Amino acid sequence: MSTYTVEFVSQNKTVRVEEGASLLEAAAKADIVIGNLCGGDGVCGRCKMIVKEGRIHGNGTMLLTLDEIRDGYVLACQSRIQGDLKVEIPAQTLAGDRVEVDQDAQRFRALNPGISRRPFANAPLVSKVFVKLSEPTLEDNEADCQRVLQALARASGDNTLQMGLRIMRQLPALLRENNFAVTALLGARGHTTEVMDIEGGDSSARQFIAVVDVGTTTVVAHLVNVPQRATVDAEACFNAQAVYGCEVTARIMASERRSPIALQEMIVGNINRLIATVAARSHVNLTDITAVVCAGNSAMTHFLLGLPASHIRRKPYIAASLEPPPLRAAEVGLRIHPRGLLYCVPGIGSWVGGDITAGILATGLYERDEITMLIDVGTNGEIVLGNKDWMMACSASTGPALEGASVACGMMGETGAIERVFIEDGQIHYRVIGNAAPKGICGSGIIDLVAVLLDKGIIDRAGKFVAGSDPAVSFQEGRGSFMLVSKAQGAVRDIFIRQDDLENIITAKAAIFAATKILLERLNLGFPDIKRLFLAGGFGNFIDRQNAVKIGLLPDLPLSRIQYVGNTSITGAKLAALSREACETLSEIRKRTTYYDLLGSADYVEQFKQAMFLPHTNIELFPSSQQHAGEAA
Amino acid sequence: MSTYTVEFVSQNKTVRVEEGASLLEAAAKADIVIGNLCGGDGVCGRCKMIVKEGRIHGNGTMLLTLDEIRDGYVLACQSRIQGDLKVEIPAQTLAGDRVEVDQDAQRFRALNPGISRRPFANAPLVSKVFVKLSEPTLEDNEADCQRVLQALARASGDNTLQMGLRIMRQLPALLRENNFAVTALLGARGHTTEVMDIEGGDSSARQFIAVVDVGTTTVVAHLVNVPQRATVDAEACFNAQAVYGCEVTARIMASERRSPIALQEMIVGNINRLIATVAARSHVNLTDITAVVCAGNSAMTHFLLGLPASHIRRKPYIAASLEPPPLRAAEVGLRIHPRGLLYCVPGIGSWVGGDITAGILATGLYERDEITMLIDVGTNGEIVLGNKDWMMACSASTGPALEGASVACGMMGETGAIERVFIEDGQIHYRVIGNAAPKGICGSGIIDLVAVLLDKGIIDRAGKFVAGSDPAVSFQEGRGSFMLVSKAQGAVRDIFIRQDDLENIITAKAAIFAATKILLERLNLGFPDIKRLFLAGGFGNFIDRQNAVKIGLLPDLPLSRIQYVGNTSITGAKLAALSREACETLSEIRKRTTYYDLLGSADYVEQFKQAMFLPHTNIELFPSSQQHAGEAA
Repeated sequence: MSTYTVEFVSQNKTVRVEEGASLLEAAAKADIVIGNLCGGDGVCGRCKMIVKEGRIHGNGTMLLTLDEIRDGYVLACQSRIQGDLKVEIPAQTLAGDRVEVDQDAQRFRALNPGISRRPFANAPLVSKVFVKLSEPTLEDNEADCQRVLQALARASGDNTLQMGLRIMRQLPALLRENNFAVTALLGARGHTTEVMDIEGGDSSARQFIAVVDVGTTTVVAHLVNVPQRATVDAEACFNAQAVYGCEVTARIMASERRSPIALQEMIVGNINRLIATVAARSHVNLTDITAVVCAGNSAMTHFLLGLPASHIRRKPYIAASLEPPPLRAAEVGLRIHPRGLLYCVPGIGSWVGGDITAGILATGLYERDEITMLIDVGTNGEIVLGNKDWMMACSASTGPALEGASVACGMMGETGAIERVFIEDGQIHYRVIGNAAPKGICGSGIIDLVAVLLDKGIIDRAGKFVAGSDPAVSFQEGRGSFMLVSKAQGAVRDIFIRQDDLENIITAKAAIFAATKILLERLNLGFPDIKRLFLAGGFGNFIDRQNAVKIGLLPDLPLSRIQYVGNTSITGAKLAALSREACETLSEIRKRTTYYDLLGSADYVEQFKQAMFLPHTNIELFPSSQQHAGEAA
Repeated sequence: MSTYTVEFVSQNKTVRVEEGASLLEAAAKADIVIGNLCGGDGVCGRCKMIVKEGRIHGNGTMLLTLDEIRDGYVLACQSRIQGDLKVEIPAQTLAGDRVEVDQDAQRFRALNPGISRRPFANAPLVSKVFVKLSEPTLEDNEADCQRVLQALARASGDNTLQMGLRIMRQLPALLRENNFAVTALLGARGHTTEVMDIEGGDSSARQFIAVVDVGTTTVVAHLVNVPQRATVDAEACFNAQAVYGCEVTARIMASERRSPIALQEMIVGNINRLIATVAARSHVNLTDITAVVCAGNSAMTHFLLGLPASHIRRKPYIAASLEPPPLRAAEVGLRIHPRGLLYCVPGIGSWVGGDITAGILATGLYERDEITMLIDVGTNGEIVLGNKDWMMACSASTGPALEGASVACGMMGETGAIERVFIEDGQIHYRVIGNAAPKGICGSGIIDLVAVLLDKGIIDRAGKFVAGSDPAVSFQEGRGSFMLVSKAQGAVRDIFIRQDDLENIITAKAAIFAATKILLERLNLGFPDIKRLFLAGGFGNFIDRQNAVKIGLLPDLPLSRIQYVGNTSITGAKLAALSREACETLSEIRKRTTYYDLLGSADYVEQFKQAMFLPHTNIELFPSSQQHAGEAA
């Protein structure tokens, strides 16, 4: 088969691909991340590129205008390569390949560590223990391995230590070369503790664990200095699997078409790069990183481990494993200490994963007296309701609208994103991340914008544009659109919100609200029974609580009961990394939490329909909006 | 470097070796086992060969007579190859390459299984469990792996089950292809139980474990049908490491010169061949053999695992490991089920290994009320003294004389060996294994012969030949010799016993007796306190108890207190294979038994000297001999 070169002009990158490969695949090969949504099915229109030179074979599409086609635009996923190419990628197509790391890291580091009620015992999943042994004599003639194991048991209080062949072989020489003073690396492996490695002398002060939040969209890694119990650095990047679609289901289908290993390689590559970056910045050797603790939704955990995920998307929606045992990190290709371990936070159900278990741990929901709700908003919205006596969890498919995707001008929370929209002196204002020219709107900006449009009567409670309500509103074939800021006004491109976008956003918030309501009803509870609501997720720190209530994403509770808790996935995973007790609590939480599949609820569709208004069909559920509406009247 | 061919004429085998290699190495390469004792140091004279054609470079030696040198005899270990060769190996040099298997197997199978007091719980180290799962639904939505683990925990009562990545990956498809009915292979791994493999359907009736006694001289393997708790077959062979010497110390030195891996390959090769043989004979697939349970002395266990054994022979005599954890059998090269496990019976000290721990288990010594002694005679003699309250063990270096080696006409217990010598009608008679022409004398025959010579006054109590006592006695340079049967009388060669041989035998029995006495004295006990004496070892079945007492190898107890118990190494290992409780008892025995190093005893040399008489300097220790002497007078 022939191969051709594809040059991405602006990126100054050239790759060689086989005839018939798609332009999207070529971009992936060049490590250019395209924020497409549909996984290459040609229906989202997010992967537009401009062919400057060369021939492609493309399918017809309704997603390109005649002007665009004349200018050489193609949908990359629908374009088969048939010769050498030069390609330009428009700015709005590029998802960027790096989250604003410093900002993110700062945000995660600044997290309130005190949400959980009680401190966990200091007993890291992997730890170093130094022992100075008495030298053997004719009377004290225990074998080398048993001598070391007995000393380690005394020092650590752990009587379940085991040692593998490799160390057994090295030990006699190592002990005698180091005057019987050695440091052991001890790793928790279920009911036993493995002596993972032994070094001569005292190296117990030098040990790190990487803690990773494996998100569908974003992957975040923190480097933790274990002896100091401190976060050293953090880094984030986009999940490279996005080339197969932003939604979990699209990725599972891709794993079926290709193999689980293809998706595994992508996420492992991401994690390896993140770890290498934080290690290099902190002058830490990869071999001093002794474990990786990962929290992610169930599908992401399956991809990381190369587990078949097919049945997660097929009735009755069954995961391969929700509680993987500790594994050798090298077994999945993670590059840390060669004997380092990989821990995955256990999940609650096929669609409520380890990130949520970690969130329950981090917020202390499982040990609270009062009824508490945790909402984690992402590509899926997971809801947990409960207290120390009972817990129930479910997941609603929101689509990526609330993350700034599946919206024409949506983008992720990086430089150039409008993150805040507000009314000042009667005028609509906005704030842009990184003080740059605006390029699009991220999730928090979208929620604000919908609330502002509702406040100013530009859209009605059904989310329809009101004709003549504002000069910035226009209509085409009966469907409205609102121009927030145009290219002429200094934006990188026209930034607007269309009727389609509003529908996607309302669908997303309705899915979460309906799930919230059904969970409460199953337990004969109402919104006022929620004494505390924790809002979590990578974008949770940014959204305006009042606006989230205003559009009906969150229930109408006193704002004092609503608390931002940030990325609880990584906070919980970090607690586990530093305490076996916390890790065991994760298993307890998994066991104690009932997983409720909304697809088993006859009521869900009705509740969902009722929530398709702003804030809701039944305005009595939102007394503060009622009051506001009264004031406006 | 040049290479040359060496043809072993009678064996019809030709090998190609490098210039300068020894003839002994060439023989090993041709899989011809030579029973040399010194490990190639040129001091035992057991590796004589005849060079028929070609050139060698040999060191001078006192171990060849002028006649032999004229006839082309060389010491193989001292002969460096410098050209193509044709070589003849004399019959007495050949150790044979196979023990009398049927006889051996019969002997081991016929063992009294009821020595141990109580039956152990039926819970094999590796077992198969069949489960039929309920199929998942929207309400019963546990993940596949957890569903299986929970069902297995219910079926087995084991809550420490763990499953690796490979099985996790296969499970979803396997469950659905087999209507959720599967058989799991569960293996004990310390504090956890590993799900080693899962097969579709019910295969729980088909499972085997190989149990191996790793002896310095002989390796014995039994194949056990686990569900039926029955021994299916047995096979034995010589330890191929004999090429490096018959004594443990010589082998350790060889492992230092070469590498522990060289010795590992030899013993692993032996075990693989034994297992393949019994499996083929019993029509069992190697993949249905799910574990190997090995018992051997500490050095043999080190070689099997490739552990450095150097410090076992160097003061203060410290082993690398005496209690290796369960390992993957493939990790050392054993060819059974690819995920099969290797268990090594824990040892008590550097010179009291797992074979003795197994012996204590098999004889139930550890749970007896009365004071009991276990003597295991081999290349080393191990002695255990104790009861349910206390146990102490030590080892005496006997040399291989009592196994028929380090004696001019000694040989192992195979066809052609004189195994019994006795007086009938005033004449000395003998019995030969396999009714063949006699080729040499094995251990049991040697003990008989010494007792008979003593009885007939042909040797005195110091072990010296008495001039004129018998026509078969002759003297050369003042040192006597007794011709048992000459070549002229139909033997393959002259079979005699020399003064040197007697000294080796007396040294061996003195070492064991002194050790026995010191153990007793340390505990303020005397011989009459021994209420039961178990005699174990590959040759224990054959020796005459009365003659063993007569020459002072065993203490002078009523014969009713002395019991042959055969190969307790393999009996104990088999008990452990079929019961985790028995396996845990082995660890208990190891912990409860005090290892006493005779090299730490100031008294040992004195006791040893006193035992250098037949039966002993102090005849009062042997009242039955005293009486006998009285009768003879």
